[in-house]
Amino acid sequence: MPSVSTKGQHMPESPIRKLVPYAEKAYKANKTVYHLNIGQPDIKSPKIAMDAVTLHSLEVLAYTRSEGSEGYRQKISGYYKSKSIPVGAEDIIVTTGGSEALLFAMGTICDAGDEIIIPEPFYANYNGFATASGVKIVPVISKIEDNFALPPIADFEKLISPKTKAILICNPGNPTGYLYSKEEIKTLANIVKKHNLFLVSDEVYREFTYDGLEHYSILQEPGMDEYGILIDSVSKRYSMCGARIGCLVSKNRQVIATALKFAQARLSPPTFAQIASEAALETPQEYFDEVIKEYQDRRDTLISHLKKIPGVIVGVPKGAFYCIVQLPVKNSDAFAQWLLEKFDLNGETVMVAPAGGFYSTPGVGLNQVRIAYVLNKDSLIRAVEILKVALEQYPD
Amino acid sequence: MPSVSTKGQHMPESPIRKLVPYAEKAYKANKTVYHLNIGQPDIKSPKIAMDAVTLHSLEVLAYTRSEGSEGYRQKISGYYKSKSIPVGAEDIIVTTGGSEALLFAMGTICDAGDEIIIPEPFYANYNGFATASGVKIVPVISKIEDNFALPPIADFEKLISPKTKAILICNPGNPTGYLYSKEEIKTLANIVKKHNLFLVSDEVYREFTYDGLEHYSILQEPGMDEYGILIDSVSKRYSMCGARIGCLVSKNRQVIATALKFAQARLSPPTFAQIASEAALETPQEYFDEVIKEYQDRRDTLISHLKKIPGVIVGVPKGAFYCIVQLPVKNSDAFAQWLLEKFDLNGETVMVAPAGGFYSTPGVGLNQVRIAYVLNKDSLIRAVEILKVALEQYPD
Repeated sequence: MPSVSTKGQHMPESPIRKLVPYAEKAYKANKTVYHLNIGQPDIKSPKIAMDAVTLHSLEVLAYTRSEGSEGYRQKISGYYKSKSIPVGAEDIIVTTGGSEALLFAMGTICDAGDEIIIPEPFYANYNGFATASGVKIVPVISKIEDNFALPPIADFEKLISPKTKAILICNPGNPTGYLYSKEEIKTLANIVKKHNLFLVSDEVYREFTYDGLEHYSILQEPGMDEYGILIDSVSKRYSMCGARIGCLVSKNRQVIATALKFAQARLSPPTFAQIASEAALETPQEYFDEVIKEYQDRRDTLISHLKKIPGVIVGVPKGAFYCIVQLPVKNSDAFAQWLLEKFDLNGETVMVAPAGGFYSTPGVGLNQVRIAYVLNKDSLIRAVEILKVALEQYPD
Repeated sequence: MPSVSTKGQHMPESPIRKLVPYAEKAYKANKTVYHLNIGQPDIKSPKIAMDAVTLHSLEVLAYTRSEGSEGYRQKISGYYKSKSIPVGAEDIIVTTGGSEALLFAMGTICDAGDEIIIPEPFYANYNGFATASGVKIVPVISKIEDNFALPPIADFEKLISPKTKAILICNPGNPTGYLYSKEEIKTLANIVKKHNLFLVSDEVYREFTYDGLEHYSILQEPGMDEYGILIDSVSKRYSMCGARIGCLVSKNRQVIATALKFAQARLSPPTFAQIASEAALETPQEYFDEVIKEYQDRRDTLISHLKKIPGVIVGVPKGAFYCIVQLPVKNSDAFAQWLLEKFDLNGETVMVAPAGGFYSTPGVGLNQVRIAYVLNKDSLIRAVEILKVALEQYPD
């Protein structure tokens, strides 16, 4: 019997996936499970986007252009300009989700064995894309005590090797909720220019910033045309995770020409989803105002209740809809499993994402979990109550 | 300025892409261009599939499961069973087009530097997926004089090295239209079992067989459970190229478990397209009967008219909707460009796909083109007339 590749064996499982059998056990035991583990918002997708698909009049569901339809790319360019990000349709390749944009970016800039430096904790699927692309992730640790701020320049510079091709950030961050300041982006810009690296910025949570803070994109920073590669997606912005539409944006002509060849090989991004995504760009500002107010309220509720639990440490996320929470346990994997398998409070329990999977350095973050605030406030309050009692009862 | 990867530089361009600027020149000169170069059928998508999307009532466009929704996979399993291919939902991973299924297959079975043997000419994008995956394609030449039948066993065996992981076939074939016989599939099955390789079969044109011939899948062949990986897609079957839905199918548990990790990293296939594709499975048999009758008529028309041109050699394709045509020219790249740039017959010309891009051996197929019969009969007749006159006038 032929065997699978070493690469395939090394492909990581999602940090949540391991818990699925225990969640299924909990359902079978008729427990109510509060899902603090997922990144699927409960917010409705914009009606204008969903209606555009309902109203389609296509007779042949044909390929679009590999780089995305001209009209859609023109409109995306308009969206970026409204955010003071000066890019044109020619700088944009529409992708099948931010996921594909990340894969294209890695293939475009890295050969097998090349390295990308990423502040950790980071979005767990970066590990999967890196393994699939033969790229080595070199983590630089950001700390919960610093609220996951950008690590010092010296920490980056001591990791840069001849194989380093890029620094990759997620801004605002999944799983930290950290929003990089303009000064931090300038610091990163200086590092990549000095060492001739790319700066890849995953900005899929751009809209979700709180406390009146403004997002500053790497492509707003002057002098980044040759260095900056922006990763984007409609998934979170419009609560359209199932569309699978994103884009890769760069002013670097060689990067766009190369990424386009990856795009041509897979023919085109999905057509219906492009129709929805193009219409979504007409979403009125009130939609975002409401959604952001809702998330900020949820964040405030979640954080204030979490802080009341003895031994719990939590930063204050300034963007996205996640936070990393340090718990008074030794191993959050075991704790998350115990929550589903052994614990309930009047038939209710919670599911959290153990944070170990968001770190690439072994042994770091083992007492942390990621919590997503994609539930309504009442559910969040109840979930934190359950967590508090669980921590009191947890035997380890 | 940082530079792109060697891999990115080596990513091939589509063989048609090079001609696009010349096609644009032809449009600007107000020429009518008959497109014999494309794989986008003109056939309408099944109404039942398009209506399913029109009638959607989703409020949140959410992720589906990474392996595709349970209901859809159950129905795909039913489809395969109706084709005497005994696979269950657990053997199926829904992908973003056949393209992604091919990428997952290569990542699952090959490490960088591993080899896959493919009879050439082959679907040009195999080159792109192989380059992206760091896989080396080892071609085995099939000949137009043999109507592109399976090359002799000895030809395969002399190419098998310790790095060989699989043989990949496209059945029926793009670009040849060749349909492998049951005996040929058994021959391939014996080779892979003897040498402990995978047999990957791209069967996206399964329905399109002519002259009463029946398709025989590698997964119908007994004893292939551990060796066979089937690649499939809704693109051609239902003329739904823009859906971007396909699947990877295998009875090998390790293959499915590994491919699933690649699927998890990219979260899920597109949701709207899965709705359309699930509904498409209810397409009545008459749809296919009509479509296949139409393609067979087109094929007969095309081939009979092509054969009347002096110096033209063309096999008789038994499936799909392509044929490879050998022309009395030295370089079909130059000829295809000349057709667009310098030639017209009363303001009309044709665009063909030079076949060199479908071969991996340098210098082979340079006097051949691929013609797709995705135009109606009258257009095909006119296009061949134009080609005939062009060949008479071509100065080289």
